[in-house]
Amino acid sequence: MSANTWGTLFRVTTCGESHGAGLLAIIDGCPPGLAVTEADIQVELDRRRPGQSRYTTARREADQVKIIAGVFEGKTTGAPIGLLIENTDQRSKDYSAIKDLFRPGHADYTYWHKYGTRDYRGGGRSSARETAMRVAAGAIAKLFLRQQGIEIRAGVVQIGPHQSNCDAQSLNWAATAENDFFCPDPSLVAKFDALIRDLKKAGDSVGARVRVEATGVPVGLGEPIFDRLEADAAKALMSINAVKAVSCGDGFAVAAQRGSEHRDELTPSGFRSNRSGGVLGGISTGQDLVFEIAFKPTSSITIAGDSIDVDGQPVSVVTRGRHDPCVGIRGVPVAEAMLALVLMDHFLRHRGQNADVSVSTPKLAAKSAE
Amino acid sequence: MSANTWGTLFRVTTCGESHGAGLLAIIDGCPPGLAVTEADIQVELDRRRPGQSRYTTARREADQVKIIAGVFEGKTTGAPIGLLIENTDQRSKDYSAIKDLFRPGHADYTYWHKYGTRDYRGGGRSSARETAMRVAAGAIAKLFLRQQGIEIRAGVVQIGPHQSNCDAQSLNWAATAENDFFCPDPSLVAKFDALIRDLKKAGDSVGARVRVEATGVPVGLGEPIFDRLEADAAKALMSINAVKAVSCGDGFAVAAQRGSEHRDELTPSGFRSNRSGGVLGGISTGQDLVFEIAFKPTSSITIAGDSIDVDGQPVSVVTRGRHDPCVGIRGVPVAEAMLALVLMDHFLRHRGQNADVSVSTPKLAAKSAE
Amino acid sequence: MSANTWGTLFRVTTCGESHGAGLLAIIDGCPPGLAVTEADIQVELDRRRPGQSRYTTARREADQVKIIAGVFEGKTTGAPIGLLIENTDQRSKDYSAIKDLFRPGHADYTYWHKYGTRDYRGGGRSSARETAMRVAAGAIAKLFLRQQGIEIRAGVVQIGPHQSNCDAQSLNWAATAENDFFCPDPSLVAKFDALIRDLKKAGDSVGARVRVEATGVPVGLGEPIFDRLEADAAKALMSINAVKAVSCGDGFAVAAQRGSEHRDELTPSGFRSNRSGGVLGGISTGQDLVFEIAFKPTSSITIAGDSIDVDGQPVSVVTRGRHDPCVGIRGVPVAEAMLALVLMDHFLRHRGQNADVSVSTPKLAAKSAE
Amino acid sequence: MSANTWGTLFRVTTCGESHGAGLLAIIDGCPPGLAVTEADIQVELDRRRPGQSRYTTARREADQVKIIAGVFEGKTTGAPIGLLIENTDQRSKDYSAIKDLFRPGHADYTYWHKYGTRDYRGGGRSSARETAMRVAAGAIAKLFLRQQGIEIRAGVVQIGPHQSNCDAQSLNWAATAENDFFCPDPSLVAKFDALIRDLKKAGDSVGARVRVEATGVPVGLGEPIFDRLEADAAKALMSINAVKAVSCGDGFAVAAQRGSEHRDELTPSGFRSNRSGGVLGGISTGQDLVFEIAFKPTSSITIAGDSIDVDGQPVSVVTRGRHDPCVGIRGVPVAEAMLALVLMDHFLRHRGQNADVSVSTPKLAAKSAE
Repeated sequence: MSANTWGTLFRVTTCGESHGAGLLAIIDGCPPGLAVTEADIQVELDRRRPGQSRYTTARREADQVKIIAGVFEGKTTGAPIGLLIENTDQRSKDYSAIKDLFRPGHADYTYWHKYGTRDYRGGGRSSARETAMRVAAGAIAKLFLRQQGIEIRAGVVQIGPHQSNCDAQSLNWAATAENDFFCPDPSLVAKFDALIRDLKKAGDSVGARVRVEATGVPVGLGEPIFDRLEADAAKALMSINAVKAVSCGDGFAVAAQRGSEHRDELTPSGFRSNRSGGVLGGISTGQDLVFEIAFKPTSSITIAGDSIDVDGQPVSVVTRGRHDPCVGIRGVPVAEAMLALVLMDHFLRHRGQNADVSVSTPKLAAKSAE
Repeated sequence: MSANTWGTLFRVTTCGESHGAGLLAIIDGCPPGLAVTEADIQVELDRRRPGQSRYTTARREADQVKIIAGVFEGKTTGAPIGLLIENTDQRSKDYSAIKDLFRPGHADYTYWHKYGTRDYRGGGRSSARETAMRVAAGAIAKLFLRQQGIEIRAGVVQIGPHQSNCDAQSLNWAATAENDFFCPDPSLVAKFDALIRDLKKAGDSVGARVRVEATGVPVGLGEPIFDRLEADAAKALMSINAVKAVSCGDGFAVAAQRGSEHRDELTPSGFRSNRSGGVLGGISTGQDLVFEIAFKPTSSITIAGDSIDVDGQPVSVVTRGRHDPCVGIRGVPVAEAMLALVLMDHFLRHRGQNADVSVSTPKLAAKSAE
Repeated sequence: MSANTWGTLFRVTTCGESHGAGLLAIIDGCPPGLAVTEADIQVELDRRRPGQSRYTTARREADQVKIIAGVFEGKTTGAPIGLLIENTDQRSKDYSAIKDLFRPGHADYTYWHKYGTRDYRGGGRSSARETAMRVAAGAIAKLFLRQQGIEIRAGVVQIGPHQSNCDAQSLNWAATAENDFFCPDPSLVAKFDALIRDLKKAGDSVGARVRVEATGVPVGLGEPIFDRLEADAAKALMSINAVKAVSCGDGFAVAAQRGSEHRDELTPSGFRSNRSGGVLGGISTGQDLVFEIAFKPTSSITIAGDSIDVDGQPVSVVTRGRHDPCVGIRGVPVAEAMLALVLMDHFLRHRGQNADVSVSTPKLAAKSAE
Repeated sequence: MSANTWGTLFRVTTCGESHGAGLLAIIDGCPPGLAVTEADIQVELDRRRPGQSRYTTARREADQVKIIAGVFEGKTTGAPIGLLIENTDQRSKDYSAIKDLFRPGHADYTYWHKYGTRDYRGGGRSSARETAMRVAAGAIAKLFLRQQGIEIRAGVVQIGPHQSNCDAQSLNWAATAENDFFCPDPSLVAKFDALIRDLKKAGDSVGARVRVEATGVPVGLGEPIFDRLEADAAKALMSINAVKAVSCGDGFAVAAQRGSEHRDELTPSGFRSNRSGGVLGGISTGQDLVFEIAFKPTSSITIAGDSIDVDGQPVSVVTRGRHDPCVGIRGVPVAEAMLALVLMDHFLRHRGQNADVSVSTPKLAAKSAE
């Protein structure tokens, strides 16, 4: 398994399991001079942290991040940034009930077959706990992007049958900070609340759809032909646990559209529409980037399901413990983080290849060479 | 722009524009000993080739591939494979009409802004012609995968309002070879035909949805956490021109599902369902891989649209020439090729890290060392 | 700066400065099932640790490594391995004397110009302290390689004017564990000792030449044309602080050799000589790998030298503190570690591309699919 | 074998064997707007071409390069550049004499064991013919670097026992264009000439030492800790066929130096010396970069040598054909090319991460958005 690094110029490498000693991240390629504090990262981690509301798992992880390296006198130095989150809420628990069987819908079966072994304590590396470090790294990317005028936002626009129209009338991004669902459409909040309450009683879970956007993106980000901006974003978003679909702009609806309807016409004052979702030919147009993703319902539910054990014998499985009834909710800050990583990497990549920008050498060089 | 290479261990690098001298591909990392002929590659190129039916562009490119390197006495040697397709149908044409304006819905605008220049002859690198080399490389991957028991198939399951149920009853994969739409649902063919005829009359175009599957996939392919199999597939498929959405298994429908409904239960004789699309935790389950993608309608239509020129002045644009009314049709072999590249790369990656397989050294080594 | 990751399939990412909170490493791509303990890593760290003998710096770092992730029940799981070494001996010190000047022969000048900032506490990322994590990662690679029959060894064969003939008569590898110089030629030890004593009195330092070898290497490691085994080894060894030259086999002496003299003839019982250093065409021959490297003398000496400050004004610099008179000595375990990283990565790369080795799927797969 | 690509942002991928249809290169990541013609590339290829003088092989390859893609109206577009060199001088020849045996000192033995097969016609991919495309790609890098004020030069400073002092008195770089040895020390030319004449009579070959320099390099190139400038250069140079050693600055001589002697002191008007070879801490200092490499003598000689055949039986081998008596001579333009690739890649990498340079968007963006 050699795929725990994300990015080309802005590179994030993570490790850590839900029941080990902790999580690490090394963030390489951050330009020097960026002001970063532990508090800047913590604020994003707190958005994702479990135990925040009744809609998410009751598991309580302090998720306190410590900067181990790469920041000196409050600023990045160009050296790799090291982060540590120690695990604190590892209830010592008896795993013998699940040690030798495969929970349906979980990665137990595939990890066992791939690696010939399995860390059965809480899912090991396949646990969503891994996403904490994505959020921490994303927090740093967001700080950089904000300096460039780029902002990232995400919110839940569907849970079960309840969904937003996602038009200018229904979306109010400020509202995401005011409800426990990160929902930008206030008309849905009461419906979401009722649905989750019912699910918790039933011991079941539900999927969700999340919209992720970026504003202030300059024209020119994205590297044809394989690292198109939407292709890298699709990979980043699909790499989040439980995500099963990714769309850009009008997404699957384009299959039913006509060319005369789909194309975003241009006028001297800008584009007339944004069906493309902010990319053409794999490169950002300068409009808002618009993506949507679907989270599957977690399989950690208390309704019994059929499965097999490691000897291939049939078993019935009930997953007890503290689990999210809708993992898509806490997926919101993770989705923001992944889009931030993609944009920061592409920002640096675009800049690296721009022919008319000369290497800036501090004045001293000239002076000392005189 | 440094993103014309796909893959980690099986690496495909391409170049070439629609109106230059030709297209090149270098395919690195193919294991030695694989039987490959130009005819093996040509058969796949011919499936994608324009001018094949009345539903695709009338542009005629022979697309004759030549193997330049890496194959000796009919087999790969372990050296990189070089492919050349010379461009033959470059009508000398007057481009002055579009040279200084941005066709709406095209990459003209973004390429111009990113690179400060633009190859205005037929779209340059943003032309779908680039996908010919994806198909050629995919043909080699398919040969390798077939030896391992893995087959890849794709077909159009929606054009405009007409779509398949995509269930066992409606899908007949053998049918894709028997109609000009690569459509696995024969009940749709007449509807597609009528729609395309109408569109051609109207000078308009339409989108499409394509289903891509792989059978015979072993358990264990995919590299958590960032190079999950579905994440790499999502990037590969989203990197195809005009693709705006990618789903795995039940896709966006999971947002409305409950956990008790979504999880694929296991029995001693296998999985009960395949809502996951053949991956769990980013790793193949041994079930069929199932993806769907949406192609936008091409913007190359003869209905006038508003845009601007390079000086920002308003213009009206009509795109004449020989264009596909539905680019999703010829996207079918391209989608197969991209999934083939992903699977072959992951096959080699999985094998590289498997601890209990020793390096196989030919017998001679022992002999000569005695 | 995005170059703190080494390797293609076996990937090591590190961070940490000499005067920060500590050092981190994430080791990705280690096959599952490898037995690894903190003690296995500690034994290698202790070989590199400062304060071990009078020939090295008196700085005392406990360099206690903690495994944070990736090892479960004593074995690797296939998940990335996380390591932490906390810094303990950070004397709070007044850096105002060197804060604004460039020590001659140090990276102060180049870091300042590259990053526009500089971590002046002990050299920041340019400090040799960074190599501790190379050694820790190398310890894991050595465990894996040992299982495959590959052993790595290194030793100082020259300090100042005193050098070994490096022939079968003079080299005794067991001796490296018995003297404080890791010297495989016992005849040199007394000379080295006298020289270092003189240097310490004079406040000066000296360079060294180190020989690095691997035994038990199978035929076939190395990836033409750019990742030849000796090319990757050259990069790995040249990336060590203070190394200024790398040779393979007969090295620079080949410039004076004739073809009839240089070529290693083959007989049915093996090669007659090893002038090539164990590689032909970039691929291991099955003979011992033989490299040599040169370490420059450290510039941290108490003899005053001329330099400039950040304003370009002339200054005289004396570097006080606890420094190695000959950094090549502690470079020995670092050189071993880097060769181990190269060999492990190439071992996995070679295996990944070997066509006749099928993916090994645990028996269960068949059973559960029946 | 997946290692036929060089570089991170400026990426060169090559393929082709000495006796196949030709050679291809795809050069990805070249900034747009660079003026490049086939003649610019041809002039460098002609320097490397065989059959130029009596000191090199009589094999005659026209080595005519064709630009297939990526250049439009005489300038790069940002799209990947495609190059083709067709093989013309493939004498149809009987290879049965060497087909089943391993020439000593060649890659025959290792390729056979690694790949289980071998392209026995002229060495296949292990032939020095592969280096033609390195030179072609390097020609493009040189054009870019020249615009930035960076020039690269190389020359033979030793053949057999005859070597230059390499000091300011003996080196005259203009002389490299005036003799057939690319020798910057005119006092050596007659000695080289006599030696090569003797060797040709004897049917033997000889090694060589080549010095490679770059002038005009800005401060700041190189990416600690693993992609130090000298580490990447060491890999690039060691990846050239027949190279067995690489040094930077004073090279192996540093093992005998003292710190007070080695450090390059700084004054307000610049460095006092350049023992470091132009790098400190892995980053360019702004001084000239200075490397030296050693080429082994080719093993393609007519003096019989012992070897074995593929069945392990003893054989005597004579390598007839048209071979260079001193491959180091034609290695000069190859060494220049590799250093050019390294510098161009690092130039783009440095620029990509420089925090205070904003993305330059053409004026139009603002205008069209008004």
